[in-house]
Amino acid sequence: MSERIWTAALVVIGDEILSGRTQDKNIAQLATWLNVQGIRLAEVRVVADREAAIVEAVDTLRHRCDYCFTTGGIGPTHDDITVDAIAKALGVAVVVHPEARAILERYYATRGGLTDARLRMARVPDGAELITNRVSGAPGIRHGNLFILAGVPHITAGMLEALTGTLEGGRPLIARTIGCWVGESEVAELLRATERTYRGDGDVAAVAIGSYPFFREGRTGANFVVRGTDPAVLDACLAALVDALETAGHDVVDGGI
Amino acid sequence: MSERIWTAALVVIGDEILSGRTQDKNIAQLATWLNVQGIRLAEVRVVADREAAIVEAVDTLRHRCDYCFTTGGIGPTHDDITVDAIAKALGVAVVVHPEARAILERYYATRGGLTDARLRMARVPDGAELITNRVSGAPGIRHGNLFILAGVPHITAGMLEALTGTLEGGRPLIARTIGCWVGESEVAELLRATERTYRGDGDVAAVAIGSYPFFREGRTGANFVVRGTDPAVLDACLAALVDALETAGHDVVDGGI
Repeated sequence: MSERIWTAALVVIGDEILSGRTQDKNIAQLATWLNVQGIRLAEVRVVADREAAIVEAVDTLRHRCDYCFTTGGIGPTHDDITVDAIAKALGVAVVVHPEARAILERYYATRGGLTDARLRMARVPDGAELITNRVSGAPGIRHGNLFILAGVPHITAGMLEALTGTLEGGRPLIARTIGCWVGESEVAELLRATERTYRGDGDVAAVAIGSYPFFREGRTGANFVVRGTDPAVLDACLAALVDALETAGHDVVDGGI
Repeated sequence: MSERIWTAALVVIGDEILSGRTQDKNIAQLATWLNVQGIRLAEVRVVADREAAIVEAVDTLRHRCDYCFTTGGIGPTHDDITVDAIAKALGVAVVVHPEARAILERYYATRGGLTDARLRMARVPDGAELITNRVSGAPGIRHGNLFILAGVPHITAGMLEALTGTLEGGRPLIARTIGCWVGESEVAELLRATERTYRGDGDVAAVAIGSYPFFREGRTGANFVVRGTDPAVLDACLAALVDALETAGHDVVDGGI
């Protein structure tokens, strides 16, 4: 019995990420939010503020995944070229969205008025809808399966909140973590065998075990994360893993170390 | 006079990044290190622990950029498939590297011996050289313009340290930051005009200005980052920007806010 897995991609747009100036936070933020919507983050690309780079990434990923998100490059300055690039990828014109214009007029009424630069933030690819931005005025943009979000993480968060529950997805991805004070190489074979029993044979595994080693307090340990969408399969895989680890003589810490 | 810009790409490999469990730190870490080597991080892809996804990303990016780095997936467990995927992308066999084997034998001599799982970490795409790992035994791998690094950030850092000064690059990317307590939309036009004067007409700009707004202590501000490789062009662009901002009545904070 095969389950439909809904997928999403993210294109992070910004020289500030590629130069190392800014530590990206939107990958983890979007991934976590998508899990709750029952959508799997399948691929991320980080590209520069260059039209050709944005067009290529968006055009590939919007066809490959059910949903494609972008973050960054929707402000009022010259380095904000996301809307123009995406319109180009979609083969549509850039238009001023009347509702976005009205939102910005209200927002800037007491803040010096709607200048040409600010009006840039009302520009959308023709045919787009708006995504509410309760934080800072300028809205996000939805065009079909494309979601164009702000780059500043707390503004991105507000836009995701506005989208919560509006996207069709499957069952949420759930994850259970356990930990052992053991080098992962000592238990590699039992991890492999346990996963093989439960992973299924689809392109996307029904359940997957990740192994994440660490070195802490002078000791070697590892956390094992079991991920999947079917609670019954997940529980069975987790129980088998705990059993195998304990049989091999390792104490298992529920919830991870 | 056009300057050769050396470029690199990064493929971050790992379900833990795409699930939101782990906040990636290697993008910013590699970007910062590359700047000092005179190499520009041009694109990043984050892919799952799936062979087809790794092969596609590595094969595209190793041809597109001067250098291609990967992080993650080189440990001893079943979810560590980077070496096999890259060998497939390169069309070469996977072999046990004798020096890597010797390193692991020494490392595990007092740690329970070299098991089959641990020996997996000596496997490399045929024709590869090793990258020293002073932190945890298992080495990184270089194959032509491909650099296969660990995913755990402090181990990645050690491998980058071992590579420091060994890669041909151009002039280091330098950046100067200034800040103003101003909404970026108020100065958008002068930013655009200043950049246009200095950016040159190559595919990669001689100098670029990034605008990064923030909201802090109840006030709106923005930092402006001027990036480039030619100190003279950079200084001229920065001076012109400071002059334009001050002429428009804004106090400029050197170093950013």
